[in-house]
This record gives sequence, C-alpha cells and structure tokens, in this order.
Amino acid sequence: MEQRLTIITLGVKSLATSIDFYENKFGWTRSEMSNDNIAFYQLNGMLLSLYPKEALAEDATIRSAGEGFPGFSLAYNTRSEQEVDDLIDGFRNKGVKIVKEPQKVFWGGYSSYIADPDGYLWEIAFNPFLDVDSLS
Amino acid sequence: MEQRLTIITLGVKSLATSIDFYENKFGWTRSEMSNDNIAFYQLNGMLLSLYPKEALAEDATIRSAGEGFPGFSLAYNTRSEQEVDDLIDGFRNKGVKIVKEPQKVFWGGYSSYIADPDGYLWEIAFNPFLDVDSLS
Repeated sequence: MEQRLTIITLGVKSLATSIDFYENKFGWTRSEMSNDNIAFYQLNGMLLSLYPKEALAEDATIRSAGEGFPGFSLAYNTRSEQEVDDLIDGFRNKGVKIVKEPQKVFWGGYSSYIADPDGYLWEIAFNPFLDVDSLS
Repeated sequence: MEQRLTIITLGVKSLATSIDFYENKFGWTRSEMSNDNIAFYQLNGMLLSLYPKEALAEDATIRSAGEGFPGFSLAYNTRSEQEVDDLIDGFRNKGVKIVKEPQKVFWGGYSSYIADPDGYLWEIAFNPFLDVDSLS
C-alpha cells in the first residue's frame, strides 16, 4: 500500500453552508468534478470533498449519529507567524469562529485554531521546523 | 489562502496501537519528525499525524468528549478494482475490521471501507473517473 491518500471527505450538515465557507471564507475554487450532491476542492496532491454527513455514513454502511469532538484536525501551515495573524484577522472579519487565538505553543510554533460550520477544526500555524514547500 | 493543507491529525486512544496499525497493516514508515508523543507519516504532499485524542483537544482548547460517527472519511483510491480486492483480502488476513465489503456503487466506482483502531474510516476504492496519478 503506497504511502498516500486521495480524498478527505468532510460529512457536513448543509452542503450550501459548507461550500459558502470554503469558497467565501477560505477563497477556494470548486473542482469540475463537483455536482449538486458533492463538492470537491483540488488541494496539494489530494482532494477535499464536502458531502452530506448522513449520506457519508450511509455510504460506509454505518450509523450517522455522532456528537462532540470528532477527534481529528486539519492543519494549514504558513511560512511566518505574521501570516497566521493575517489569516486569523481576515477570518475574524468574515465572522469565522476563532477557537484559539494565535499564540506561541510548547512545541516551538505559533498556532491558532478555527472551526468550520460543522465544527471541524483547522489549525492555522507556523511551524519553524516544517518547510511547507518541501512537502509537495 | 492557498488551496492546500499540511497535516491531517487523527486523535487516537492509544498511540502504540495506532502506530502498529499504520505500520503493520498499512505498511507505512514513520517520518523522522516523529517522537514519543506524536507520529508523522509523509504522504503525497502532506503529513498524516497520530496524536493522543485528549492532547489534540487540549491543544485546540476544546473538550475531548465525543462519540459516534466522527463525520469524516479518508480515501485511498486504487488503479483497478482488482487492487481493491487485493488490499481488502490483505487487511482481512491481518485482522483489520472490514466495514463494507468491496462492491459496485451508485456513482460508478468499486468501493469498500475499513476502520482504523479508533474507528476512523478509510475508503478503499477504484474510481474510474479519477486518475490517481494526476492528483500529485
């Protein structure tokens, strides 16, 4: 099994609300693969997809009920601390929920968290030990 | 904000159990960035990280309680239907929980689901409309 993945699918309450978030708060552009039932965003080497949570659970043949912390986070690493501040200021101005204000953290980075409409966590952080451009 | 992400972090009950799963069932190799508290795997253009769930919630300054469907899935797309069958057979032999047996699905693909030790879903699927090698 190769060391890769193809798609991260977020099960969402409202496709329209989540599309608005990823396109109007993040400024991302939907892929042509999208249709009325699912939205795809081409990221670095993989796709992020938005799909109704009940439909995702049904596809996996499991129950859709779930509450509280979903147990995972996605990280967007920047190239500087300033970039973290600028992104968080922009999110604040657009009404995005800031879960954790940018701050120095124990591992040596500068980190903050925001929540998407379903409460999925995005860490917006500068990690001085991680060269963002070396990952791709 | 660029259309990318850097890290997917899975909050896990037991780091040792999850490391065993990703290394001995998936056959993946840990990155040098890893330490006793966190495991990183270099994937295509991003990192997958394993981190204790309580510590992840604490880092995000939220409550760690959560149950039921976490609401997301990760997908590993193959280059053929046969490859799906082969991977699932291999997982079955290694005692991995098969959530959905490989089958033709409504969108034209051939799909299955497995669960990692925390119940996080991996879809193992062939999508005839998606060229895996064009994503990276």
